[in-house]
Amino acid sequence: MSILSPDGLEAALRAIGEERYHIHHPFHHMLHGGKLTKGQVQAWALNRYYYQASIPAKDASLLARLPTPELRREWRRRLVDHDGDGVHPGGVERWLALTDGLGLDRYHVVSLEGLLPATRFAVDAYVRFVREKTLLEAIASSLTEMFSPNIISQRVSGMLRNYDFVTEQTLAYFTPRLTQAPQDVAFALSYVKEHADTAERQEQVLAALRFKCDLLWAQLDALHFAYVAPGLPPPGAFRP
Amino acid sequence: MSILSPDGLEAALRAIGEERYHIHHPFHHMLHGGKLTKGQVQAWALNRYYYQASIPAKDASLLARLPTPELRREWRRRLVDHDGDGVHPGGVERWLALTDGLGLDRYHVVSLEGLLPATRFAVDAYVRFVREKTLLEAIASSLTEMFSPNIISQRVSGMLRNYDFVTEQTLAYFTPRLTQAPQDVAFALSYVKEHADTAERQEQVLAALRFKCDLLWAQLDALHFAYVAPGLPPPGAFRP
Repeated sequence: MSILSPDGLEAALRAIGEERYHIHHPFHHMLHGGKLTKGQVQAWALNRYYYQASIPAKDASLLARLPTPELRREWRRRLVDHDGDGVHPGGVERWLALTDGLGLDRYHVVSLEGLLPATRFAVDAYVRFVREKTLLEAIASSLTEMFSPNIISQRVSGMLRNYDFVTEQTLAYFTPRLTQAPQDVAFALSYVKEHADTAERQEQVLAALRFKCDLLWAQLDALHFAYVAPGLPPPGAFRP
Repeated sequence: MSILSPDGLEAALRAIGEERYHIHHPFHHMLHGGKLTKGQVQAWALNRYYYQASIPAKDASLLARLPTPELRREWRRRLVDHDGDGVHPGGVERWLALTDGLGLDRYHVVSLEGLLPATRFAVDAYVRFVREKTLLEAIASSLTEMFSPNIISQRVSGMLRNYDFVTEQTLAYFTPRLTQAPQDVAFALSYVKEHADTAERQEQVLAALRFKCDLLWAQLDALHFAYVAPGLPPPGAFRP
Protein backbone atom coordinates (compact mmCIF):
# COMPACT_ATOMS: atom_id res chain seq x y z
CA MET A 1 0.00 0.00 0.00
CA SER A 2 1.28 3.51 -0.73
CA ILE A 3 1.11 6.27 1.83
CA LEU A 4 -2.21 8.02 2.38
CA SER A 5 -2.75 11.67 3.20
CA PRO A 6 -3.87 12.25 6.82
CA ASP A 7 -7.43 12.74 5.59
CA GLY A 8 -7.12 9.66 3.39
CA LEU A 9 -6.09 7.72 6.47
CA GLU A 10 -9.11 9.03 8.36
CA ALA A 11 -11.35 7.95 5.48
CA ALA A 12 -9.78 4.47 5.52
CA LEU A 13 -10.39 4.26 9.29
CA ARG A 14 -14.02 5.26 8.83
CA ALA A 15 -14.42 2.64 6.09
CA ILE A 16 -13.34 -0.03 8.58
CA GLY A 17 -16.09 1.11 10.92
CA GLU A 18 -18.61 0.93 8.10
CA GLU A 19 -17.68 -2.68 7.50
CA ARG A 20 -16.83 -4.06 10.92
CA TYR A 21 -18.28 -1.98 13.75
CA HIS A 22 -20.67 -4.02 15.89
CA ILE A 23 -23.52 -1.61 15.11
CA HIS A 24 -24.08 -4.06 12.21
CA HIS A 25 -24.27 -7.12 14.46
CA PRO A 26 -27.64 -8.89 14.69
CA PHE A 27 -27.43 -8.97 18.48
CA HIS A 28 -27.21 -5.18 18.55
CA HIS A 29 -30.24 -4.94 16.27
CA MET A 30 -32.18 -7.26 18.57
CA LEU A 31 -31.03 -5.36 21.67
CA HIS A 32 -32.19 -1.93 20.60
CA GLY A 33 -35.12 -3.29 18.60
CA GLY A 34 -36.77 -4.75 21.68
CA LYS A 35 -36.39 -8.32 20.48
CA LEU A 36 -34.58 -9.65 23.55
CA THR A 37 -36.01 -11.04 26.76
CA LYS A 38 -35.01 -9.51 30.06
CA GLY A 39 -32.76 -12.52 30.67
CA GLN A 40 -30.94 -11.90 27.38
CA VAL A 41 -30.48 -8.21 28.22
CA GLN A 42 -29.15 -9.30 31.62
CA ALA A 43 -26.63 -11.59 29.92
CA TRP A 44 -25.47 -8.69 27.73
CA ALA A 45 -25.07 -6.35 30.71
CA LEU A 46 -23.31 -8.95 32.83
CA ASN A 47 -20.80 -9.79 30.12
CA ARG A 48 -20.26 -6.21 29.03
CA TYR A 49 -19.43 -5.37 32.65
CA TYR A 50 -16.12 -7.17 32.22
CA TYR A 51 -15.31 -4.99 29.23
CA GLN A 52 -16.19 -1.82 31.16
CA ALA A 53 -14.22 -2.92 34.21
CA SER A 54 -11.16 -3.67 32.08
CA ILE A 55 -11.06 -0.32 30.26
CA PRO A 56 -9.23 1.49 33.10
CA ALA A 57 -6.59 -1.29 33.19
CA LYS A 58 -6.14 -0.79 29.46
CA ASP A 59 -5.91 2.98 29.79
CA ALA A 60 -3.56 2.85 32.77
CA SER A 61 -1.08 0.69 30.92
CA LEU A 62 -1.23 3.02 27.94
CA LEU A 63 -0.84 6.05 30.24
CA ALA A 64 2.24 4.43 31.78
CA ARG A 65 3.97 4.49 28.41
CA LEU A 66 3.16 8.06 27.34
CA PRO A 67 6.27 10.25 27.28
CA THR A 68 5.07 13.77 28.20
CA PRO A 69 2.92 15.43 30.88
CA GLU A 70 0.64 16.82 28.15
CA LEU A 71 -0.05 13.40 26.66
CA ARG A 72 -0.45 11.80 30.08
CA ARG A 73 -2.91 14.46 31.24
CA GLU A 74 -4.94 13.91 28.09
CA TRP A 75 -5.09 10.16 28.65
CA ARG A 76 -5.59 10.52 32.41
CA ARG A 77 -8.97 12.05 31.70
CA ARG A 78 -10.10 8.63 30.50
CA LEU A 79 -9.25 7.12 33.87
CA VAL A 80 -11.31 9.82 35.59
CA ASP A 81 -14.18 9.12 33.20
CA HIS A 82 -14.16 5.43 34.01
CA ASP A 83 -13.08 5.28 37.64
CA GLY A 84 -14.75 8.51 38.84
CA ASP A 85 -13.24 11.04 41.21
CA GLY A 86 -14.64 9.71 44.49
CA VAL A 87 -17.57 12.12 44.28
CA HIS A 88 -19.00 11.64 40.80
CA PRO A 89 -19.37 8.02 39.79
CA GLY A 90 -17.27 6.82 36.85
CA GLY A 91 -18.28 4.56 33.99
CA VAL A 92 -17.64 1.30 35.87
CA GLU A 93 -19.91 2.40 38.72
CA ARG A 94 -22.53 3.61 36.27
CA TRP A 95 -22.45 0.25 34.52
CA LEU A 96 -23.23 -1.43 37.83
CA ALA A 97 -26.23 0.90 38.14
CA LEU A 98 -27.35 -0.64 34.85
CA THR A 99 -26.88 -4.22 36.05
CA ASP A 100 -28.65 -3.26 39.33
CA GLY A 101 -31.51 -1.79 37.33
CA LEU A 102 -31.82 -5.04 35.41
CA GLY A 103 -32.19 -6.96 38.66
CA LEU A 104 -28.78 -8.62 38.67
CA ASP A 105 -27.03 -9.19 41.96
CA ARG A 106 -24.10 -6.78 42.06
CA TYR A 107 -21.87 -9.20 43.94
CA HIS A 108 -22.50 -11.84 41.29
CA VAL A 109 -21.72 -9.42 38.45
CA VAL A 110 -18.46 -8.24 39.99
CA SER A 111 -17.40 -11.81 40.85
CA LEU A 112 -17.32 -12.61 37.10
CA GLU A 113 -18.81 -16.01 37.85
CA GLY A 114 -21.16 -16.60 34.99
CA LEU A 115 -19.07 -14.60 32.50
CA LEU A 116 -18.81 -16.23 29.08
CA PRO A 117 -15.22 -17.45 28.60
CA ALA A 118 -15.26 -15.89 25.13
CA THR A 119 -15.93 -12.48 26.71
CA ARG A 120 -12.91 -12.91 28.93
CA PHE A 121 -10.67 -13.99 26.06
CA ALA A 122 -11.70 -11.06 23.85
CA VAL A 123 -11.41 -8.42 26.56
CA ASP A 124 -8.09 -9.75 27.82
CA ALA A 125 -6.80 -9.72 24.25
CA TYR A 126 -7.59 -6.01 24.13
CA VAL A 127 -5.81 -5.18 27.38
CA ARG A 128 -2.78 -7.11 26.21
CA PHE A 129 -2.79 -5.56 22.78
CA VAL A 130 -2.59 -2.11 24.34
CA ARG A 131 0.12 -3.24 26.73
CA GLU A 132 2.30 -4.93 24.12
CA LYS A 133 1.90 -3.14 20.80
CA THR A 134 3.42 0.22 19.85
CA LEU A 135 1.92 3.33 21.39
CA LEU A 136 0.60 4.30 17.98
CA GLU A 137 -1.25 1.01 17.59
CA ALA A 138 -2.51 1.18 21.17
CA ILE A 139 -3.94 4.66 20.61
CA ALA A 140 -5.39 3.67 17.24
CA SER A 141 -7.24 0.77 18.85
CA SER A 142 -9.29 3.31 20.84
CA LEU A 143 -10.71 4.78 17.65
CA THR A 144 -13.86 2.67 17.69
CA GLU A 145 -15.08 5.64 19.73
CA MET A 146 -15.42 7.42 16.38
CA PHE A 147 -18.44 5.19 15.82
CA SER A 148 -19.85 4.95 19.34
CA PRO A 149 -22.20 7.97 19.49
CA ASN A 150 -24.34 6.35 16.79
CA ILE A 151 -24.58 2.99 18.50
CA ILE A 152 -25.22 4.59 21.88
CA SER A 153 -28.08 6.73 20.65
CA GLN A 154 -29.64 3.72 18.87
CA ARG A 155 -29.25 1.65 22.02
CA VAL A 156 -30.63 4.22 24.46
CA SER A 157 -33.61 5.34 22.43
CA GLY A 158 -34.44 1.81 21.30
CA MET A 159 -34.11 0.25 24.74
CA LEU A 160 -36.20 2.97 26.43
CA ARG A 161 -38.92 2.59 23.83
CA ASN A 162 -38.99 -1.17 23.74
CA TYR A 163 -38.37 -2.55 27.23
CA ASP A 164 -40.57 -1.76 30.20
CA PHE A 165 -37.80 -2.98 32.53
CA VAL A 166 -35.42 -0.24 31.33
CA THR A 167 -35.51 3.36 32.59
CA GLU A 168 -33.49 6.49 31.87
CA GLN A 169 -31.84 5.99 35.23
CA THR A 170 -30.82 2.43 34.31
CA LEU A 171 -29.20 3.76 31.14
CA ALA A 172 -27.45 6.69 32.83
CA TYR A 173 -24.13 5.05 31.90
CA PHE A 174 -24.49 6.17 28.33
CA THR A 175 -25.32 9.87 28.60
CA PRO A 176 -21.83 11.13 29.58
CA ARG A 177 -20.30 8.87 26.94
CA LEU A 178 -21.96 10.95 24.24
CA THR A 179 -19.76 13.91 25.15
CA GLN A 180 -16.70 12.00 26.45
CA ALA A 181 -16.21 9.85 23.36
CA PRO A 182 -15.95 12.71 20.84
CA GLN A 183 -13.44 14.46 23.11
CA ASP A 184 -11.38 11.26 23.28
CA VAL A 185 -11.59 10.84 19.53
CA ALA A 186 -10.51 14.40 18.79
CA PHE A 187 -7.23 13.70 20.53
CA ALA A 188 -6.62 10.12 19.43
CA LEU A 189 -7.50 10.72 15.80
CA SER A 190 -5.25 13.75 15.47
CA TYR A 191 -2.43 11.83 17.21
CA VAL A 192 -2.83 8.95 14.79
CA LYS A 193 -3.05 11.19 11.73
CA GLU A 194 0.14 12.97 12.79
CA HIS A 195 2.22 9.94 13.83
CA ALA A 196 1.23 7.38 11.19
CA ASP A 197 3.66 8.98 8.78
CA THR A 198 4.76 5.96 6.76
CA ALA A 199 2.73 3.45 4.77
CA GLU A 200 3.81 0.75 7.22
CA ARG A 201 2.63 2.70 10.26
CA GLN A 202 -0.64 3.50 8.51
CA GLU A 203 -1.16 -0.20 7.87
CA GLN A 204 -0.51 -0.89 11.58
CA VAL A 205 -3.06 1.72 12.53
CA LEU A 206 -5.69 0.25 10.23
CA ALA A 207 -4.96 -3.25 11.53
CA ALA A 208 -5.30 -2.01 15.11
CA LEU A 209 -8.76 -0.64 14.41
CA ARG A 210 -9.77 -3.85 12.63
CA PHE A 211 -8.56 -5.83 15.64
CA LYS A 212 -10.63 -3.67 17.98
CA CYS A 213 -13.76 -3.98 15.83
CA ASP A 214 -13.24 -7.74 15.73
CA LEU A 215 -13.12 -8.05 19.49
CA LEU A 216 -16.28 -6.00 20.00
CA TRP A 217 -17.95 -8.13 17.34
CA ALA A 218 -16.73 -11.36 18.93
CA GLN A 219 -18.33 -10.36 22.23
CA LEU A 220 -21.73 -10.08 20.54
CA ASP A 221 -21.15 -13.34 18.64
CA ALA A 222 -20.63 -15.09 21.96
CA LEU A 223 -23.76 -13.54 23.48
CA HIS A 224 -25.81 -14.37 20.41
CA PHE A 225 -24.57 -17.95 20.35
CA ALA A 226 -25.11 -18.56 24.05
CA TYR A 227 -28.39 -16.72 24.60
CA VAL A 228 -30.18 -16.23 21.26
CA ALA A 229 -29.40 -18.74 18.55
CA PRO A 230 -28.82 -21.59 18.90
CA GLY A 231 -28.86 -20.58 22.61
CA LEU A 232 -26.23 -22.80 24.14
CA PRO A 233 -24.57 -21.21 27.16
CA PRO A 234 -21.30 -23.05 27.87
CA PRO A 235 -20.91 -25.03 31.11
CA GLY A 236 -20.70 -22.71 34.09
CA ALA A 237 -22.00 -19.57 32.33
CA PHE A 238 -24.86 -17.33 33.50
CA ARG A 239 -28.30 -18.78 32.88
CA PRO A 240 -31.12 -16.25 32.86
CA MET B 1 -12.48 -26.60 50.27
CA SER B 2 -10.51 -29.08 52.37
CA ILE B 3 -7.51 -30.93 50.98
CA LEU B 4 -8.14 -33.94 48.77
CA SER B 5 -6.08 -37.10 48.58
CA PRO B 6 -4.05 -37.39 45.36
CA ASP B 7 -6.63 -39.86 44.03
CA GLY B 8 -9.43 -37.58 45.17
CA LEU B 9 -7.81 -34.79 43.20
CA GLU B 10 -7.62 -37.01 40.12
CA ALA B 11 -11.30 -37.84 40.53
CA ALA B 12 -12.15 -34.12 40.78
CA LEU B 13 -10.13 -33.47 37.61
CA ARG B 14 -11.97 -36.23 35.78
CA ALA B 15 -15.30 -34.81 36.95
CA ILE B 16 -14.41 -31.49 35.28
CA GLY B 17 -13.86 -33.34 32.03
CA GLU B 18 -17.21 -35.06 32.38
CA GLU B 19 -18.92 -31.70 32.65
CA ARG B 20 -16.89 -29.39 30.45
CA TYR B 21 -14.78 -31.24 27.88
CA HIS B 22 -15.75 -30.30 24.33
CA ILE B 23 -16.67 -33.90 23.53
CA HIS B 24 -20.11 -32.75 24.75
CA HIS B 25 -20.28 -29.80 22.35
CA PRO B 26 -22.92 -29.97 19.59
CA PHE B 27 -20.35 -29.00 16.97
CA HIS B 28 -18.29 -32.06 17.86
CA HIS B 29 -21.37 -34.25 17.57
CA MET B 30 -22.10 -32.81 14.15
CA LEU B 31 -18.46 -33.16 13.06
CA HIS B 32 -18.09 -36.86 13.79
CA GLY B 33 -21.75 -37.59 13.04
CA GLY B 34 -21.36 -36.56 9.42
CA LYS B 35 -23.75 -33.62 9.76
CA LEU B 36 -21.37 -30.96 8.45
CA THR B 37 -20.78 -29.83 4.90
CA LYS B 38 -17.29 -29.92 3.49
CA GLY B 39 -17.13 -26.13 3.89
CA GLN B 40 -17.94 -26.43 7.59
CA VAL B 41 -15.28 -29.11 8.07
CA GLN B 42 -12.84 -26.81 6.25
CA ALA B 43 -13.71 -23.98 8.65
CA TRP B 44 -13.04 -26.29 11.59
CA ALA B 45 -9.66 -27.43 10.21
CA LEU B 46 -8.59 -23.92 9.26
CA ASN B 47 -9.39 -22.52 12.70
CA ARG B 48 -8.00 -25.48 14.60
CA TYR B 49 -4.73 -25.01 12.72
CA TYR B 50 -4.07 -21.92 14.81
CA TYR B 51 -4.48 -23.97 17.97
CA GLN B 52 -2.11 -26.67 16.67
CA ALA B 53 0.44 -24.11 15.52
CA SER B 54 0.40 -22.39 18.92
CA ILE B 55 0.95 -25.53 21.00
CA PRO B 56 4.75 -25.53 20.53
CA ALA B 57 4.90 -21.85 21.61
CA LYS B 58 2.96 -22.82 24.70
CA ASP B 59 5.20 -25.81 25.40
CA ALA B 60 8.40 -23.89 24.76
CA SER B 61 7.50 -21.22 27.28
CA LEU B 62 6.66 -23.89 29.83
CA LEU B 63 9.89 -25.73 29.06
CA ALA B 64 11.81 -22.50 29.62
CA ARG B 65 10.61 -22.39 33.21
CA LEU B 66 11.25 -26.01 34.21
CA PRO B 67 14.06 -26.28 36.76
CA THR B 68 15.77 -29.63 36.04
CA PRO B 69 17.15 -31.54 33.05
CA GLU B 70 14.78 -34.44 33.82
CA LEU B 71 11.70 -32.23 33.72
CA ARG B 72 12.90 -30.37 30.64
CA ARG B 73 13.61 -33.60 28.74
CA GLU B 74 10.14 -34.82 29.58
CA TRP B 75 8.54 -31.65 28.29
CA ARG B 76 10.90 -31.39 25.30
CA ARG B 77 9.30 -34.53 23.93
CA ARG B 78 6.16 -32.50 23.34
CA LEU B 79 8.08 -30.10 21.12
CA VAL B 80 9.41 -33.03 19.10
CA ASP B 81 5.88 -34.40 18.81
CA HIS B 82 4.55 -31.13 17.45
CA ASP B 83 7.48 -29.68 15.52
CA GLY B 84 8.95 -32.96 14.20
CA ASP B 85 12.64 -33.85 14.01
CA GLY B 86 13.31 -32.72 10.45
CA VAL B 87 12.73 -36.27 9.18
CA HIS B 88 9.42 -37.32 10.67
CA PRO B 89 6.71 -34.68 10.40
CA GLY B 90 5.38 -33.26 13.64
CA GLY B 91 1.80 -32.48 14.57
CA VAL B 92 1.75 -29.04 12.97
CA GLU B 93 2.89 -30.49 9.64
CA ARG B 94 0.41 -33.34 9.93
CA TRP B 95 -2.38 -30.86 10.55
CA LEU B 96 -1.48 -29.14 7.30
CA ALA B 97 -1.80 -32.52 5.59
CA LEU B 98 -5.36 -32.50 6.91
CA THR B 99 -6.11 -28.99 5.60
CA ASP B 100 -4.48 -30.00 2.27
CA GLY B 101 -6.66 -33.10 2.16
CA LEU B 102 -9.73 -30.93 2.66
CA GLY B 103 -8.75 -28.83 -0.34
CA LEU B 104 -7.68 -25.72 1.53
CA ASP B 105 -4.82 -23.65 0.18
CA ARG B 106 -1.89 -24.17 2.53
CA TYR B 107 -0.62 -20.64 2.13
CA HIS B 108 -4.04 -19.30 3.08
CA VAL B 109 -4.25 -21.54 6.16
CA VAL B 110 -0.81 -20.56 7.42
CA SER B 111 -1.44 -16.86 6.74
CA LEU B 112 -4.24 -16.94 9.34
CA GLU B 113 -6.31 -14.69 7.12
CA GLY B 114 -9.81 -15.97 7.53
CA LEU B 115 -9.27 -17.12 11.11
CA LEU B 116 -12.19 -16.34 13.42
CA PRO B 117 -11.10 -13.61 15.85
CA ALA B 118 -12.62 -15.68 18.67
CA THR B 119 -10.24 -18.53 17.82
CA ARG B 120 -7.29 -16.19 18.09
CA PHE B 121 -8.47 -14.76 21.42
CA ALA B 122 -9.02 -18.20 22.95
CA VAL B 123 -5.76 -19.70 21.73
CA ASP B 124 -3.73 -16.65 22.73
CA ALA B 125 -5.34 -16.77 26.16
CA TYR B 126 -3.98 -20.31 26.51
CA VAL B 127 -0.43 -19.42 25.49
CA ARG B 128 -0.46 -16.52 27.92
CA PHE B 129 -1.94 -18.56 30.73
CA VAL B 130 0.93 -21.01 30.46
CA ARG B 131 3.46 -18.18 30.27
CA GLU B 132 2.12 -16.22 33.24
CA LYS B 133 0.62 -18.64 35.75
CA THR B 134 2.53 -20.88 38.14
CA LEU B 135 4.28 -23.92 36.72
CA LEU B 136 1.79 -26.13 38.54
CA GLU B 137 -1.18 -24.38 36.90
CA ALA B 138 0.57 -24.41 33.52
CA ILE B 139 1.14 -28.15 33.71
CA ALA B 140 -2.39 -28.77 35.00
CA SER B 141 -3.84 -26.94 32.01
CA SER B 142 -2.40 -29.67 29.76
CA LEU B 143 -4.57 -32.29 31.46
CA THR B 144 -7.37 -32.11 28.92
CA GLU B 145 -5.22 -34.77 27.26
CA MET B 146 -6.73 -37.15 29.83
CA PHE B 147 -9.90 -36.92 27.79
CA SER B 148 -8.50 -36.68 24.27
CA PRO B 149 -8.21 -40.36 23.24
CA ASN B 150 -12.02 -40.64 23.46
CA ILE B 151 -12.71 -37.58 21.36
CA ILE B 152 -10.05 -38.53 18.81
CA SER B 153 -11.40 -42.01 18.29
CA GLN B 154 -14.95 -40.68 17.92
CA ARG B 155 -13.70 -38.08 15.46
CA VAL B 156 -11.59 -40.41 13.33
CA SER B 157 -14.03 -43.28 13.07
CA GLY B 158 -17.03 -40.96 12.60
CA MET B 159 -15.35 -38.79 9.99
CA LEU B 160 -14.05 -41.74 7.99
CA ARG B 161 -17.48 -43.34 8.00
CA ASN B 162 -19.47 -40.23 7.22
CA TYR B 163 -17.52 -38.04 4.81
CA ASP B 164 -16.41 -39.17 1.38
CA PHE B 165 -13.92 -36.27 1.25
CA VAL B 166 -12.02 -37.63 4.26
CA THR B 167 -9.43 -40.43 4.05
CA GLU B 168 -7.19 -42.18 6.56
CA GLN B 169 -4.33 -40.21 5.10
CA THR B 170 -6.15 -36.91 5.70
CA LEU B 171 -6.64 -37.88 9.32
CA ALA B 172 -3.07 -39.09 9.87
CA TYR B 173 -2.64 -36.27 12.37
CA PHE B 174 -4.60 -38.13 14.95
CA THR B 175 -3.03 -41.60 15.00
CA PRO B 176 0.19 -40.68 16.83
CA ARG B 177 -1.80 -38.56 19.28
CA LEU B 178 -3.46 -41.72 20.58
CA THR B 179 -0.14 -42.90 21.99
CA GLN B 180 1.48 -39.49 22.67
CA ALA B 181 -1.36 -38.11 24.77
CA PRO B 182 -1.43 -40.91 27.38
CA GLN B 183 2.36 -40.65 27.74
CA ASP B 184 2.02 -36.88 28.29
CA VAL B 185 -0.77 -37.42 30.79
CA ALA B 186 1.15 -40.01 32.79
CA PHE B 187 3.80 -37.41 33.53
CA ALA B 188 1.60 -34.34 33.97
CA LEU B 189 -0.97 -36.04 36.15
CA SER B 190 1.61 -37.50 38.51
CA TYR B 191 3.37 -34.12 38.68
CA VAL B 192 0.10 -32.41 39.58
CA LYS B 193 -0.90 -35.05 42.12
CA GLU B 194 2.47 -34.71 43.82
CA HIS B 195 2.82 -30.92 43.79
CA ALA B 196 -0.75 -29.82 44.50
CA ASP B 197 -0.17 -30.44 48.19
CA THR B 198 -2.40 -27.79 49.74
CA ALA B 199 -6.11 -27.14 49.32
CA GLU B 200 -5.28 -23.82 47.68
CA ARG B 201 -2.96 -25.40 45.11
CA GLN B 202 -5.52 -28.09 44.41
CA GLU B 203 -8.11 -25.38 43.76
CA GLN B 204 -5.66 -23.70 41.35
CA VAL B 205 -5.15 -26.96 39.51
CA LEU B 206 -8.88 -27.55 39.15
CA ALA B 207 -9.38 -23.97 37.96
CA ALA B 208 -6.60 -24.41 35.39
CA LEU B 209 -8.32 -27.46 33.92
CA ARG B 210 -11.68 -25.64 33.88
CA PHE B 211 -10.01 -22.75 32.06
CA LYS B 212 -8.57 -25.10 29.47
CA CYS B 213 -11.88 -26.88 28.91
CA ASP B 214 -13.55 -23.48 28.53
CA LEU B 215 -11.18 -22.36 25.81
CA LEU B 216 -11.57 -25.57 23.81
CA TRP B 217 -15.34 -25.19 24.19
CA ALA B 218 -15.24 -21.52 23.16
CA GLN B 219 -13.47 -22.46 19.93
CA LEU B 220 -16.34 -24.77 18.98
CA ASP B 221 -18.90 -22.14 20.05
CA ALA B 222 -17.32 -19.71 17.62
CA LEU B 223 -17.30 -22.25 14.78
CA HIS B 224 -20.88 -23.26 15.47
CA PHE B 225 -22.04 -19.64 15.58
CA ALA B 226 -20.20 -18.60 12.43
CA TYR B 227 -20.77 -21.68 10.27
CA VAL B 228 -23.70 -23.71 11.61
CA ALA B 229 -26.34 -21.78 13.55
CA PRO B 230 -27.19 -19.04 13.06
CA GLY B 231 -24.30 -19.12 10.57
CA LEU B 232 -22.92 -15.60 10.72
CA PRO B 233 -19.19 -15.46 9.97
CA PRO B 234 -17.80 -12.13 11.22
CA PRO B 235 -16.46 -9.59 8.71
CA GLY B 236 -13.21 -10.82 7.17
CA ALA B 237 -13.53 -14.46 8.26
CA PHE B 238 -13.24 -17.53 6.01
CA ARG B 239 -16.31 -18.18 3.88
CA PRO B 240 -16.62 -21.72 2.56
